[in-house]
Amino acid sequence: MPGVSELSEFFRTEFPQQQVVIESVGNRAARIRRPVDAADLRPGNTVSGPFMMGVADTALYAAILAEIGLVALAVTTSLNINFFRRPSATADVIGDCKLLKVGKKLIVGEVTLYSAGDNKPIAHAVGTYALPD
Amino acid sequence: MPGVSELSEFFRTEFPQQQVVIESVGNRAARIRRPVDAADLRPGNTVSGPFMMGVADTALYAAILAEIGLVALAVTTSLNINFFRRPSATADVIGDCKLLKVGKKLIVGEVTLYSAGDNKPIAHAVGTYALPD
Amino acid sequence: MPGVSELSEFFRTEFPQQQVVIESVGNRAARIRRPVDAADLRPGNTVSGPFMMGVADTALYAAILAEIGLVALAVTTSLNINFFRRPSATADVIGDCKLLKVGKKLIVGEVTLYSAGDNKPIAHAVGTYALPD
Amino acid sequence: MPGVSELSEFFRTEFPQQQVVIESVGNRAARIRRPVDAADLRPGNTVSGPFMMGVADTALYAAILAEIGLVALAVTTSLNINFFRRPSATADVIGDCKLLKVGKKLIVGEVTLYSAGDNKPIAHAVGTYALPD
Repeated sequence: MPGVSELSEFFRTEFPQQQVVIESVGNRAARIRRPVDAADLRPGNTVSGPFMMGVADTALYAAILAEIGLVALAVTTSLNINFFRRPSATADVIGDCKLLKVGKKLIVGEVTLYSAGDNKPIAHAVGTYALPD
Repeated sequence: MPGVSELSEFFRTEFPQQQVVIESVGNRAARIRRPVDAADLRPGNTVSGPFMMGVADTALYAAILAEIGLVALAVTTSLNINFFRRPSATADVIGDCKLLKVGKKLIVGEVTLYSAGDNKPIAHAVGTYALPD
Repeated sequence: MPGVSELSEFFRTEFPQQQVVIESVGNRAARIRRPVDAADLRPGNTVSGPFMMGVADTALYAAILAEIGLVALAVTTSLNINFFRRPSATADVIGDCKLLKVGKKLIVGEVTLYSAGDNKPIAHAVGTYALPD
Repeated sequence: MPGVSELSEFFRTEFPQQQVVIESVGNRAARIRRPVDAADLRPGNTVSGPFMMGVADTALYAAILAEIGLVALAVTTSLNINFFRRPSATADVIGDCKLLKVGKKLIVGEVTLYSAGDNKPIAHAVGTYALPD
């Protein structure tokens, strides 16, 4: 199964428009980090909700690819996110994913989001990916 | 309460980095449209999930502001989205929001998402905003 | 496809422990009604949350069976519910379901819940069923 | 703050129609257990979805009461549940709750559900309670 460097290369090639740092993968988990840039900020000196949803989605995707390999064409079927606190405008956003269920058709995982350097979660998401037959 | 032109001006000022067309607001509803650009595309000639979540969030925000006025500082507390079909890479994404509950502390609404020109929904979201005291 | 009387019979046979009245089915929709009994009440003279979740789940199941037939072994994979107002302790709970997506593997629907005789929704749910291969 | 015996007494008094065993509370967490009886079973020798939602809701409520005390009148505002595997028809259902956010207005927690004696989760829920002013 792919590790950090293989996944990093995959994200760089497939999603060149977003900067993603894969920090760790394996054991049905993944930790990623995304830098925040000006376009992601919102009034009140904070980070947009959709940016956080994107980090959640990417962390889940990384954990899934590390589990099933790079070949599969998995697609998100649902995402549920709860926002807890305003993220810092000047810190990377970290997504910590743990897969909850790895089925043959559906994979479900949860992602806790943090502003780098602060261990209080800013948001929590649960998402489902469907696997091709 | 603010109408289409006042809300359009508000979004242009507050969220200059995203292009949003407010098509209609009122009666606890809003319809918005966002053009898709290269950075929002994904492999498979489709639109990213976070882009769709962003349209859902914005449609909900527009419906809420049209209901309670531009002064309030409402924040998203949760969003649940289900993805149905791949959106077109060449069509704007439309978000059609209807508020389900307008309370003193929480407002809940649903948003159906479409690729412009196609009346089969591509996704459906339910989101909650918390109002300040 | 099965209509009201066939579905009523099915629910009576398969789920004898819960009283369900199928009011209407068809066109990717269903409307059901469940009487509230003492065991479903909660302090504050209201109806329990799990009872409402049960009505949502049943309305969705009825709409799906009316769409795909009684043979399939569909199972709930997720349910998201938002509660709006306290239901009446003395009125039946009504679940009005509309299917949002009918796919080959997954069916997604939304359910609006009411206390019979009051047209303000008490809750709203979105649920997903997985179909067998 | 109330401990296991005080909470057990509270549930016995307030919700006499459901049997709940409070196994542990504290540190923003709670573990509860509910026996399954005939009315909770479903075809296929399994436990109903609404029963599992009820366990999730109760585990969350127990964790919240242990955190804020028995006096508050907290109400569920939303619950999102994903079902992973069919629960055993002959084992109690266990709900393991961890609070994710304890705010002044909203408390969010996650609950992992198990069939007693099996450490593979059968479902996972995230719920929100609103606190009175």
